[in-house]
Amino acid sequence: MNACSSALLTDLYQLTMLQGYFAERMEETAVFEFFVRRLPAERNFLLAAGLEQVLDFLEHFHFTPAELEWLESTERFRRDFVEYLRDLRFTGDVHAMPEGTVFFDNEPILRVTAPLPQAQIVETRIINLLHFQTVIASKAVRSVLAAPGKTLVDFGLRRAHGAEAGLLAARACYLAGFTATSDVLAGQLFDIPLSGTMAHSFVQACDSEEEAFVRFARANRDNVVLLLDTYNTEAAAAKVVQLAPKLRSEGILIQGVRLDSGDLAEHARQVRRILDDGGLQKVHIFASGSIDELKLQKFFRAGVPIDGFGIGSRLDTSSDAPYLDCAYKIQEYAGRPRRKRSEGKATWPGRKQVFRLYGDDGRLGFDKLALEDEKTPGTPLIVPVMRNGKRLAPPTPLIELRRRVAEEVARLPADLQGLEPAKAYSAHVSPALRELAEKLDHAPS
Amino acid sequence: MNACSSALLTDLYQLTMLQGYFAERMEETAVFEFFVRRLPAERNFLLAAGLEQVLDFLEHFHFTPAELEWLESTERFRRDFVEYLRDLRFTGDVHAMPEGTVFFDNEPILRVTAPLPQAQIVETRIINLLHFQTVIASKAVRSVLAAPGKTLVDFGLRRAHGAEAGLLAARACYLAGFTATSDVLAGQLFDIPLSGTMAHSFVQACDSEEEAFVRFARANRDNVVLLLDTYNTEAAAAKVVQLAPKLRSEGILIQGVRLDSGDLAEHARQVRRILDDGGLQKVHIFASGSIDELKLQKFFRAGVPIDGFGIGSRLDTSSDAPYLDCAYKIQEYAGRPRRKRSEGKATWPGRKQVFRLYGDDGRLGFDKLALEDEKTPGTPLIVPVMRNGKRLAPPTPLIELRRRVAEEVARLPADLQGLEPAKAYSAHVSPALRELAEKLDHAPS
Repeated sequence: MNACSSALLTDLYQLTMLQGYFAERMEETAVFEFFVRRLPAERNFLLAAGLEQVLDFLEHFHFTPAELEWLESTERFRRDFVEYLRDLRFTGDVHAMPEGTVFFDNEPILRVTAPLPQAQIVETRIINLLHFQTVIASKAVRSVLAAPGKTLVDFGLRRAHGAEAGLLAARACYLAGFTATSDVLAGQLFDIPLSGTMAHSFVQACDSEEEAFVRFARANRDNVVLLLDTYNTEAAAAKVVQLAPKLRSEGILIQGVRLDSGDLAEHARQVRRILDDGGLQKVHIFASGSIDELKLQKFFRAGVPIDGFGIGSRLDTSSDAPYLDCAYKIQEYAGRPRRKRSEGKATWPGRKQVFRLYGDDGRLGFDKLALEDEKTPGTPLIVPVMRNGKRLAPPTPLIELRRRVAEEVARLPADLQGLEPAKAYSAHVSPALRELAEKLDHAPS
Repeated sequence: MNACSSALLTDLYQLTMLQGYFAERMEETAVFEFFVRRLPAERNFLLAAGLEQVLDFLEHFHFTPAELEWLESTERFRRDFVEYLRDLRFTGDVHAMPEGTVFFDNEPILRVTAPLPQAQIVETRIINLLHFQTVIASKAVRSVLAAPGKTLVDFGLRRAHGAEAGLLAARACYLAGFTATSDVLAGQLFDIPLSGTMAHSFVQACDSEEEAFVRFARANRDNVVLLLDTYNTEAAAAKVVQLAPKLRSEGILIQGVRLDSGDLAEHARQVRRILDDGGLQKVHIFASGSIDELKLQKFFRAGVPIDGFGIGSRLDTSSDAPYLDCAYKIQEYAGRPRRKRSEGKATWPGRKQVFRLYGDDGRLGFDKLALEDEKTPGTPLIVPVMRNGKRLAPPTPLIELRRRVAEEVARLPADLQGLEPAKAYSAHVSPALRELAEKLDHAPS
């Protein structure tokens, strides 16, 4: 099944609402914005990610004949409505923060301007795509901040939530500054460097650990990273020292070893000593197993001699904050601003812009949330990216997005860069926007 | 991209190991088992799920010519190895616990018996598929237990981790006993009942709430669930009462209303009273917004008049336990049992079976983890499901798996059925299995 691109990948209510819009000819221009209501306590900032996949989705949005036939067979929809869906395409405009932009609560990172049914039907998948990569990029960048200069590899595919999660997590991690991924398909699709070592099964399938190391090294001469912990980590490190001259005589250099269990810091110190004493100062130590940014920070601060980390479950599921309180909400219809006033979930109405101001030190000063057409100092973060259903520029290479993240993060105040919860940083709301919201609160509903 | 079925959806090390197996002609029969090492503190039991997708993956496993061409272009692999991959198919056997079986730590729920390279290359995707649906089914069943008889609808697609996560979460929730999903594609693919209401945007796009209710009702006569909280929940409920006679005169019955913000219990009581006083005793109250099993239990015990719930983010990300400490490990190769001895991650070697024993009250008594060929009382939970790469039976309809879950869960001791952490229930390990493990511990490595 090619599930990722199906127009049926949506909530039922989008279709029932569209049937209502169709019946009532409600096709005027609507403006929807995607934003995060509140940051999780575990995040000092978020990184916008997933726009590329959203634009791809919008450009190709359509129902196939088979999907329409099935929709009609459910007897939920009128034939003339199903016929109308046949020609439905996304022909609207999109404004967005570029991927890799740092953002905060209530700041829209994407705005869709399109005839109401078009802007509505794409809601579910837009949230699904923007939410997930933003979750992962915002988690991954914390590891990058916690262990500067270390090799960080995404190992999470197996425990990511399905195939697409594994792929998009690899992308979001690389965007956030990771070095590589183990996910081969992500390497192919997104041009991300690949990295991998060996598994315990290889060692166990051989009659001895030495045999396994030699066999693996000979078969993968350019990528020799040997796994030490199948039986006894330090004993395995000693075997690596013993084998190194023999392999060197065959022209094979051992590049690294991997630790995957026990007290990683203690094993790393022991193994480093064994390798160094054996003349293998250049062999890197790589570690994996229940790693997250807090452990990275601890290792980094303690000077633990680990050169690189494979990070999986906690990263690809963003286990400490696996979802964001985000929404895609209508802010204007038929030229009139709209405001949802639900308790604790009220929205800022109208088409908005986020203006970012920097301090004299070049670091982030504050953001201002204002109406789009307000004259306000600062850099506007939301830019046009799609007009009439067509992208305004080809996709930005991931390597450039990565560069932007590095720059953005370097300009954050020190407390926001830290892993510890910082004082919440929220955009100032412009007086004009407040006034509009209050005016709408007093309108009849 | 049809990412979900690509053979490249794997970790790089599977391919580098395969290159080693290929070079050394290591193609004898290997036995791998999938199991969960430890249950999360928040789970008293797990539900096996995802087998159907694993079998589908194994039956169709192959590399396409384009994938092979790309692999060769990476210059990581020898041409003869890439040629060997061209004909690689899965021709092995699979034994497994049927989906919906209750299981505990260290109990294998799937066993693969196949030539080593075949059993190895499928590891990543097998874990990816079994892990996720097991995570979600094991989370969802807690809601079913917390609110017996209530309508429970999966609303999670938008905050699930990608497309496949949304689809498979819908499946896992239905398997666990949910009533329906909002995910249209999941409805089509898995034949799950669909459910949906309306969004705030529909109300906001209309000039008044009354107008929105009438328009929606007329366009979806058989599925009229009106959203009350866009502006003021109780005021909207009063409008529903006012509109009901008019709609009734058009032959339209309002089936329900939805609350989505504020104090749901308090709003539900108020709205119930307003509806009842207005003669709308049959109109159901449906609630959504940050719901999980703990809230469900609270509402249920307090007799809050909510008939159904839409559950999203916390369910589809299993936010309190978003991943399991699971593994797919080699237990035998070339006829010899193998044991990984890593600290805290040692495995039980050999081909194993889980025997389940029930007490006189018909409830689960204890499980015994034993070698496959041991004579042990109890029901063996692991059964053959695939031989020589072909399924032994067509897929079990989801509706039957659902029935099995209901039966399985009904036979659990009361403490395991509760949401509060119960005393850990772990299988007894047979003396023969312990003996084998000890013997292997003293073998040279």
